Amino acid sequence: MPQSEPIHYNDANPEVRAVYDDIMATRSVTDINNFWKHIANHPPTLKHTWEGVKSAMAPGALDSLTKEMIFLAVSASNGCQYCLRCHTDAARKLGMTDEMLGEVLAVVGVATQSNILATGYQIPLDEDLT
Amino acid sequence: MPQSEPIHYNDANPEVRAVYDDIMATRSVTDINNFWKHIANHPPTLKHTWEGVKSAMAPGALDSLTKEMIFLAVSASNGCQYCLRCHTDAARKLGMTDEMLGEVLAVVGVATQSNILATGYQIPLDEDLT
Amino acid sequence: MPQSEPIHYNDANPEVRAVYDDIMATRSVTDINNFWKHIANHPPTLKHTWEGVKSAMAPGALDSLTKEMIFLAVSASNGCQYCLRCHTDAARKLGMTDEMLGEVLAVVGVATQSNILATGYQIPLDEDLT
Amino acid sequence: MPQSEPIHYNDANPEVRAVYDDIMATRSVTDINNFWKHIANHPPTLKHTWEGVKSAMAPGALDSLTKEMIFLAVSASNGCQYCLRCHTDAARKLGMTDEMLGEVLAVVGVATQSNILATGYQIPLDEDLT
Amino acid sequence: MPQSEPIHYNDANPEVRAVYDDIMATRSVTDINNFWKHIANHPPTLKHTWEGVKSAMAPGALDSLTKEMIFLAVSASNGCQYCLRCHTDAARKLGMTDEMLGEVLAVVGVATQSNILATGYQIPLDEDLT
Amino acid sequence: MPQSEPIHYNDANPEVRAVYDDIMATRSVTDINNFWKHIANHPPTLKHTWEGVKSAMAPGALDSLTKEMIFLAVSASNGCQYCLRCHTDAARKLGMTDEMLGEVLAVVGVATQSNILATGYQIPLDEDLT
Repeated sequence: MPQSEPIHYNDANPEVRAVYDDIMATRSVTDINNFWKHIANHPPTLKHTWEGVKSAMAPGALDSLTKEMIFLAVSASNGCQYCLRCHTDAARKLGMTDEMLGEVLAVVGVATQSNILATGYQIPLDEDLT
Repeated sequence: MPQSEPIHYNDANPEVRAVYDDIMATRSVTDINNFWKHIANHPPTLKHTWEGVKSAMAPGALDSLTKEMIFLAVSASNGCQYCLRCHTDAARKLGMTDEMLGEVLAVVGVATQSNILATGYQIPLDEDLT
Repeated sequence: MPQSEPIHYNDANPEVRAVYDDIMATRSVTDINNFWKHIANHPPTLKHTWEGVKSAMAPGALDSLTKEMIFLAVSASNGCQYCLRCHTDAARKLGMTDEMLGEVLAVVGVATQSNILATGYQIPLDEDLT
Repeated sequence: MPQSEPIHYNDANPEVRAVYDDIMATRSVTDINNFWKHIANHPPTLKHTWEGVKSAMAPGALDSLTKEMIFLAVSASNGCQYCLRCHTDAARKLGMTDEMLGEVLAVVGVATQSNILATGYQIPLDEDLT
Repeated sequence: MPQSEPIHYNDANPEVRAVYDDIMATRSVTDINNFWKHIANHPPTLKHTWEGVKSAMAPGALDSLTKEMIFLAVSASNGCQYCLRCHTDAARKLGMTDEMLGEVLAVVGVATQSNILATGYQIPLDEDLT
Repeated sequence: MPQSEPIHYNDANPEVRAVYDDIMATRSVTDINNFWKHIANHPPTLKHTWEGVKSAMAPGALDSLTKEMIFLAVSASNGCQYCLRCHTDAARKLGMTDEMLGEVLAVVGVATQSNILATGYQIPLDEDLT
C-alpha cells in the first residue's frame, strides 16, 4: 500500500474542508496542492501546519517573493523534491526569473560548502561575535 | 591538538596573502574572519572557496541583503553555528531588522516542517509540476 | 551581539503573555523554557509554533511518553542539542528509564545506519511496497 | 550499471545464507527484504548490520511497535524513502493505525521545526539542564 | 515546467563553452555530464563550481581514486543519488572494485551510526583532544 | 542532569568489560575513548556498535588510513564534532599530514556543494548510468 492517500474535498470532513476553503481563499485558487490533501489524513496536522505556513508566508517585513525564495533554498538544502518544485513554481509566479533562481541556488551552494568547511576545520567564532 | 590553527596575514605565503588582500578590498574591511584564516591551511581551498563566495554573493538580480538572508537560512538549516552568526551579522549590517530576522527564521521553520511532512507522507508531485 | 535575547514575562506584550500563560497552564508549570522566550522575538512564530507543538504533543492515539521519545529521537537525528536535552528531560519526568533511553538511541543508531546503506546501495522498493 | 545487484539465496555463499536464515527465523518469514539482498554484496556489512538491527529492534524495555515507530520517524527525518516504507509497513503489521501514523509524523514535523528554530535563535540550555 | 533544462554545447554562449572545453580537456572525454549542462543555466555558478571541483579533485597528496571514494561517501551521506551514481562510476573507472565499494559504504554506515550515538549521548571530547 | 555518565572500567559489568578489553587489545591501547564509556550505558548498543566498527574499520581492500579519512569526511558532513576530532586524531596517527587533511576537507566541501546543486537543479541521471 502507498504511504498515504489524498483526501479529496468531497470526501473531507467539515474540519478539513474549512482548512481547504481557507487555503483556496487566501491564495485565490480553486484547487489545493497534493501536500494538503495528503497531510489531511491527520486533520490536526493539516490545521496547525496550514496556520503556521499562512502566518510565516504572509507578506510582512519581507515580501512574498523573498519568502518563497528562502523556502525553496531550504527545501533544496533538505533535499525535498516536492517542496522544492512547488515553491520554485510559486516563486516564478511572483516574478522570479531564471537568473534569480540561478542566484538563489548559487548562494545555497556556497553556503553549504562554507558550512561544511566551518565544521571540518572547527572554526571558532570571531571575537566580535562572541 | 585543535582541528586547525589560523594562518595570520604576517605568516601567510604570497598566494594566501593575495586572497586575503582581495577579501579586504572587496569588502572594504581591514581584517578578515576566522573562516578564511583557518581554511588557508589548504591554500587551494581558500582560493576556490573565496572565488565561489565572491561570485555568488555579489549583487546581481538579487541584492546583497537578500543573499545574506538566504545564506543565514541555509546555515540555520545545516546547523552551522559559525556561518549562522557571521551571516546574521552581515545581514544586520546591510539593514536586516529583528523583525526581518524573525520572518526569515519563521520561513525556515515552516519550510523544514513541510519538507519532513512531504517526505513522511511520500507526497507525489502535483500534475502541473510533472 | 548574541543571535537573540530572551523575552521575559514582565517585558512581554499581551500577545506573547497569552501564549506564555497557555504554555504554563497546559503543562502545569510556573516558568517556561528558554525556547519559548527566544522565539518570542517574533510573536507570530511563537504563537504558531506553540499551537503546533500543543496539538502534536497532546496525548491521543499515542501516549505522551511515546511522543516525547519520538521527539528526542528526531532531535538526536537532527543534531539539535537543545531539543535533545529538553525532551530527554521531559521523557524522564514521564517515566523513561535509562534503559528505555538506551533502547531509543539504539534504534536511532541502527535506523540511521540502515538509511545510509539503503541510499548507498540504491536499494529498490520491495515489490509488495510499490 | 546499477549501484548494486541483489544476492539471491541460491547464489549466496554459506556466510550470507546463515544470515538470511537467521533473519527468516527471527522474523518468521519465508523471504527477506531487498535491503539485506543488496548489502549482502559486502558480507561483513550484512552480518554486523543484521546483528545491530536484531539487537536494537528486539522487544525490551520498549515494545516492538514503539521501536518500529521510532525507526520510521528517523527514516522520515533522514529522507530515506526505502526505510520509511519498510518500517511503516512493519509498524502497520504490529498494529499501527492511520491515526497513530498521523501522530508520529505530526511529532516528527514539530520536532524538526523546533530543532531548526532552536538552532536559528541559538537558544542556550536552560539552567536546570546544564 | 521542469526545474531546469540542459544547455547543450551548440546552444551555449562562449563563456559556458570555454568551461565545457576545459572539462572535456581535463578529463579527456568528448561529452560532459548532465550536471554541468544544468548548472550552466547560471554561468557564474558553472564557472566557480568547475574551478572548485577541478582544484579539489586533482591528484595531490591524495590520489584520484581516494578522492572519488570520499566524494561518493559524502554523496551517500547527503542522500544525493545523482552525485552518488556519477562518482561511483568515476571511482570504478579508476579501479574501485565491488569489495572496495562495500568497504567504503561499511565505513559510511558505522560512521553515521557513531555520529548519531555521539550526539544522542552528548559525549564530551576526550581530554587529550580538548 | 547530563545526558549520560561514563561507565568506567572498574564499575563495568563483565559484559561491558569484555568489550572494553577487546577494544584495548584490538587497538593496542591502555584506555578507551569516552565514546565507548558513554554508550556502555546500554550494553547491547556498546557490543553491536563495537562489532560493527571493528569489522568496518579493519584493513581490507582499503587500508586503515583511507578508512579513517572517510570516517572523518562523513563526520564533518554530519556535523559531529566528537567523531570528527577523534577520527582526525586517529588518521594523523596513521600518517595523515595537514596537506592530506586539507585535501579531504576540500573534497567534502565541493562534494557537498555539488550535492546541493544537483538537488536544486533536479538534474536527471545521465543515460549511461540509468
